[in-house]
Amino acid sequence: MKETRFFYVPDAGNLTELPADEAKHATRVLRLSVGDELLLMDGKGTFFRAEITVADNHRCLYRITETMPQEPAWEGHIHIAVAPTKLNDRMEWFAEKATEIGMDELSFLDCKFSERRVIKCERIDKILIAAVKQSHKAWKPVLNEMTAFERFVKQERQGDKFICHCYDEGDIGEGGEKPFLMDVLKKGVETTVMVGPEGDFSVDEVRLALKHGYRSVSLGTSRLRTETAALVAVHMMQLVNQVVRS
Amino acid sequence: MKETRFFYVPDAGNLTELPADEAKHATRVLRLSVGDELLLMDGKGTFFRAEITVADNHRCLYRITETMPQEPAWEGHIHIAVAPTKLNDRMEWFAEKATEIGMDELSFLDCKFSERRVIKCERIDKILIAAVKQSHKAWKPVLNEMTAFERFVKQERQGDKFICHCYDEGDIGEGGEKPFLMDVLKKGVETTVMVGPEGDFSVDEVRLALKHGYRSVSLGTSRLRTETAALVAVHMMQLVNQVVRS
Repeated sequence: MKETRFFYVPDAGNLTELPADEAKHATRVLRLSVGDELLLMDGKGTFFRAEITVADNHRCLYRITETMPQEPAWEGHIHIAVAPTKLNDRMEWFAEKATEIGMDELSFLDCKFSERRVIKCERIDKILIAAVKQSHKAWKPVLNEMTAFERFVKQERQGDKFICHCYDEGDIGEGGEKPFLMDVLKKGVETTVMVGPEGDFSVDEVRLALKHGYRSVSLGTSRLRTETAALVAVHMMQLVNQVVRS
Repeated sequence: MKETRFFYVPDAGNLTELPADEAKHATRVLRLSVGDELLLMDGKGTFFRAEITVADNHRCLYRITETMPQEPAWEGHIHIAVAPTKLNDRMEWFAEKATEIGMDELSFLDCKFSERRVIKCERIDKILIAAVKQSHKAWKPVLNEMTAFERFVKQERQGDKFICHCYDEGDIGEGGEKPFLMDVLKKGVETTVMVGPEGDFSVDEVRLALKHGYRSVSLGTSRLRTETAALVAVHMMQLVNQVVRS
């Protein structure tokens, strides 16, 4: 299936028609016609083989010929929550790369020192879909709207929760000691990692997170930009959770 | 030193004047003047504290007040060799991120299926310098001109050598079995990892590499773009070689 182009159809199994933009691509760009085969992904764990039954300038109907449920490629649940960077393209780049490497959920945090308080989720979602198609992922990451930091840390959440920051133990007080993220991640466990804005989380934000069950962690000695820190965190979670490695 | 801006002066210890572009930035943008402090990095392991002695529109002279040799932040020697992507900005993005995460040497490969046969090293070098300054690295990665694949694999090279590709054992024959890169990396060892172009290495190229002491490796089950694969490889080498992790 290496070189096949996928079509993303969120409800593929229950539909018989490609969404407008995918239909346009299939018929006008790829010039597919009746009888041609399509590969569909629903972003919820299933690929489908289908055959085109009607194709014109306006629409593309199909009939499913094979349903192919996929096995997850990693265990656990990889959730990254990041404060958007001042420059949009850095977040968009991150969204693409994290999807390729493999994540389950992406949240945006509105923090005290955030340089950006608005993010166009519709645009990020398009990037996620393109990356899911390009990298043949069976699941599309869940994308959450920007959430105020305080609200986010107070939300009920399963599994292990970590906050990456640059403060020392002394700055934070109790619970400030910081192990290396890679050393405390557990395979198969739902995991949430928070990465702060360019100016870091505030001390009060870190303390609030600790109070709500988050643990302070370090991403190593390198001084990383926000989007690089978030990607490195996703890659560590992925390394720990991969089912088969080669 | 967290918020200080560094000036990159390759021969800082033997000079008394900032290079033209750095002088312009110091005097015209940051409006520094006589008596102000500068932090210099030579990209070869030493930071310097300096004081401005002359500052005008054309030049900025300094006197070193403190020489601060740095300890390496990781062991071994992290060398990534990658076939440039068709789109330049993907390689530029990779160069920035790999420098932040931490690499020692970057080479570009001209392969059979390469989508780009020319790369502007001058531009990549500027990106490396900006990332070194931004992430406060004491060493600037060595940057090598584009090299023909055959010539590259025949070069004498210390340490462990790996080639990432998507072929199965059957396609390659002897030595085609592929462990996961992370499982075979050794701490403190000079390591070279080759990542191919969008269309992968050719079978002949893989065989030639194996003949010259390279070992086939996998980067995991995710289908990664060239620049993502290269970054993931750098991060794995970094994870294995970090001296202190938090």
